[in-house]
Amino acid sequence: MEGLLARCRALPTLSVLTACSRQLSGRTPCRSHHCGPGSGQRLLLSRIFQPQNLREDQALSLESRSGELTCKSQRLMLQVGLILPASPGCYHLLPYTVRALEKLVRLIDQEMQAVGGQKVSLPSLSPAELWRATQRWDLMGKELLRLQDRHGKEYCLGPTHEEVVTALVASQKNLSYKQLPFLLYQVTRKFRDEPRPRFGLLRGREFYMKDMYTFDSSPEAARQTYGLVCDAYCSLFSRLGLQVIKAQADVGSIGGTMSHEFQLPVEVGEDQLAVCPSCGFSANVETLDSSQTNCPVCQGPLTETRGIEVGHTFYLGTKYSSIFRAQFTNAEGKPCLAEMGCYGLGVSRILAAAIEVLATEDSVRWPGLLAPYQVCLIPPKKGSKEAAATELTERLYDHIAEAVPQLHGELVLDDRTHLTIGSRLKDADKLGYPFVVVAGKRALEEPACFEVWCQNTGEQLFLTREGVLDLLTPVQVV
Amino acid sequence: MEGLLARCRALPTLSVLTACSRQLSGRTPCRSHHCGPGSGQRLLLSRIFQPQNLREDQALSLESRSGELTCKSQRLMLQVGLILPASPGCYHLLPYTVRALEKLVRLIDQEMQAVGGQKVSLPSLSPAELWRATQRWDLMGKELLRLQDRHGKEYCLGPTHEEVVTALVASQKNLSYKQLPFLLYQVTRKFRDEPRPRFGLLRGREFYMKDMYTFDSSPEAARQTYGLVCDAYCSLFSRLGLQVIKAQADVGSIGGTMSHEFQLPVEVGEDQLAVCPSCGFSANVETLDSSQTNCPVCQGPLTETRGIEVGHTFYLGTKYSSIFRAQFTNAEGKPCLAEMGCYGLGVSRILAAAIEVLATEDSVRWPGLLAPYQVCLIPPKKGSKEAAATELTERLYDHIAEAVPQLHGELVLDDRTHLTIGSRLKDADKLGYPFVVVAGKRALEEPACFEVWCQNTGEQLFLTREGVLDLLTPVQVV
Repeated sequence: MEGLLARCRALPTLSVLTACSRQLSGRTPCRSHHCGPGSGQRLLLSRIFQPQNLREDQALSLESRSGELTCKSQRLMLQVGLILPASPGCYHLLPYTVRALEKLVRLIDQEMQAVGGQKVSLPSLSPAELWRATQRWDLMGKELLRLQDRHGKEYCLGPTHEEVVTALVASQKNLSYKQLPFLLYQVTRKFRDEPRPRFGLLRGREFYMKDMYTFDSSPEAARQTYGLVCDAYCSLFSRLGLQVIKAQADVGSIGGTMSHEFQLPVEVGEDQLAVCPSCGFSANVETLDSSQTNCPVCQGPLTETRGIEVGHTFYLGTKYSSIFRAQFTNAEGKPCLAEMGCYGLGVSRILAAAIEVLATEDSVRWPGLLAPYQVCLIPPKKGSKEAAATELTERLYDHIAEAVPQLHGELVLDDRTHLTIGSRLKDADKLGYPFVVVAGKRALEEPACFEVWCQNTGEQLFLTREGVLDLLTPVQVV
Repeated sequence: MEGLLARCRALPTLSVLTACSRQLSGRTPCRSHHCGPGSGQRLLLSRIFQPQNLREDQALSLESRSGELTCKSQRLMLQVGLILPASPGCYHLLPYTVRALEKLVRLIDQEMQAVGGQKVSLPSLSPAELWRATQRWDLMGKELLRLQDRHGKEYCLGPTHEEVVTALVASQKNLSYKQLPFLLYQVTRKFRDEPRPRFGLLRGREFYMKDMYTFDSSPEAARQTYGLVCDAYCSLFSRLGLQVIKAQADVGSIGGTMSHEFQLPVEVGEDQLAVCPSCGFSANVETLDSSQTNCPVCQGPLTETRGIEVGHTFYLGTKYSSIFRAQFTNAEGKPCLAEMGCYGLGVSRILAAAIEVLATEDSVRWPGLLAPYQVCLIPPKKGSKEAAATELTERLYDHIAEAVPQLHGELVLDDRTHLTIGSRLKDADKLGYPFVVVAGKRALEEPACFEVWCQNTGEQLFLTREGVLDLLTPVQVV
């Protein structure tokens, strides 16, 4: 074997390189789903793996599954081909959804890093011994998905990572108070064996979650960190245009001494909240006495509402750091336990919850920043009187891509020109592109006039090419 | 309950919004790991969760673990705090590694989307019945990590997704040949219960993989797609500066009729390759007769080398589409089975393999595009003669961030000024920042002159502020 290795080292670098490049097939990389006669780099709707295109007749059968509990976001996301069921509580995320999810993750990264968050990636396979140390191996019961490896060693699939991250920080033996706080977070798949997975991405068994764990040198510092992360959550939801209630919450099996839920008020929500309209106090009713009907802050009357929990924060104190001995050295040179917090965002859940709140009964609507594509262009039907405007639409596509750089990659051309404008407009409405640009009758005017549907505001405009560019230039993309 | 919902709807929008904003803590978001007296938005090394900073005395103990099989990349990645062991074959990826990984994923996205790839996200929980349909539930034996949910339903944790994606495409009943090819890919964690996980991220049990599955309307079209994806792989490795061998390979348990491995030649590699230096032919020796010593193409003598498999491509034909009936309608209106290919890239493995190839015995080196941070700036030691140049270094940091926009977020200031320049330079060398800028003795000259270490080329330069900006302006960041 040593001989082979010697021969390997002797191999001239250049010939190794050519081993790959010589075998290049010589084909020009035709960007297949962009390609079509003369279409250059345009993204063509007909080539997207987007089941609404694929099986217009099937949406109905998905919708009418016998008596299955469903909700608006689940129904719409199935209908328009955003998700497909894989197994109970598990969904395939299709291309549009992955784009929305990646945009949401970029927003979350911005907000977490703005308060000092550092991104890590912890394994999903979580050793049983860590969970036994906190007794959650038993406490979590059937919600933990458990397995054994080939050697019989036990694991669970992490639904949350307090144990793991605390043990990780505890393994660092020379932490100084000067280095704290640490705010460690990840955006990964989590697993939870829900007794009744339902409502699509709202309550699944495998889902994306952002979980952050913070380590501070004192209770005061930890409370400051707690406030900063809560503010970052408020900032995130405000950028998404989602009106979230920050409600006093129960600490549940996570533990700790203070907790808040970030709740999107919506009928299908599973949590019941008490809200004080006058002072803004909000609480999960679990945290209140059943007899309490007045606000504990201002004594005003409480109203009730239902919400979807999209975020949850916990001030943990030393609950976990004391078990795993996650310590630092204080200014006096003495070892102290880190004061911890943990902070979750239901990433895939936020997508569905946003649709639940923003969509109409028939049509998906997105927070502007999360729309998978910002603009859909609809050229005339093949063979129609306006067919001459087809090229005009394609040129408009190219103009937008050139003149509005942030929209490069955010444009879709609905090239299914065997369909009428009306039926494609209906599809575009269902999918919820923020802007739909139609080359209708007035596209043949001089100068050409496009019909623009601003789907998030409901406006319909008639604009020249320059007007379209002016409208789109300020659009924000993350 | 209906009453509560009515009350919810009646709640004025504004008061819901304020529920969150009113509770803003009023703190200015002090970006904690950027903060320090007067440091503005600079990223300070002392605040990064980067175990080299945390426990300089421990690297040795990690290194000298009793007799454990290791390799250069594993040793270095542990030493400098890129990874920490979680359980056998599972690692925590720490902040620097996550940054490198995300850059690699962006590169992969570019290359896959350039050939028409569409990104999806398929669950890790993979139902047993799909794997039974292809008999891989039994064939994969102990490499599959298996579990049951609370209802006793069986799953494995997907090590690969041929079954799942083929069933997904098969569920689309009205596919037309006009819509093909589909190139569906994801970058997700995969699981494989390795009998002997080893070499850090090179052979783990939980790892990141890019897997793409293609669906074509004819064998010719599928072979063209196969060529395009192989070219995209070559393009990726060429952008990384990694000299990869594309070798004829065995189809193994995946199946199909044609397969290639993309191999990085390196001693620690577990695959044995036969390479023809004259014509570029390469093959995994598994695919050759043991008696074969001459190249089957040009009859020249074959040399042998060892490699790390970083990519693998398979032309599958209809092996999976026939089982799951993944069909489309051809031009004659008849149903036909899709011709499939599958294409893997070991994402976390590529990171370790690149370090294995590029690093020295003592110091990590990165492909330029993957370096977690491009530039490390080292101000003088506190109390030294040059201490006056501290502010100069900080101003240089700000100048670079402003004048070279792509490097915004790519700069680290090594503020551990209690350490000598020499020891911080040694750390920077170990971590492999492509550029290290030191404010040494000549920083007090007029104009100030910085010492710049270009770690990937080994050059040492003395440059003024303008010289530093000129050097860094062309640096590419993904």
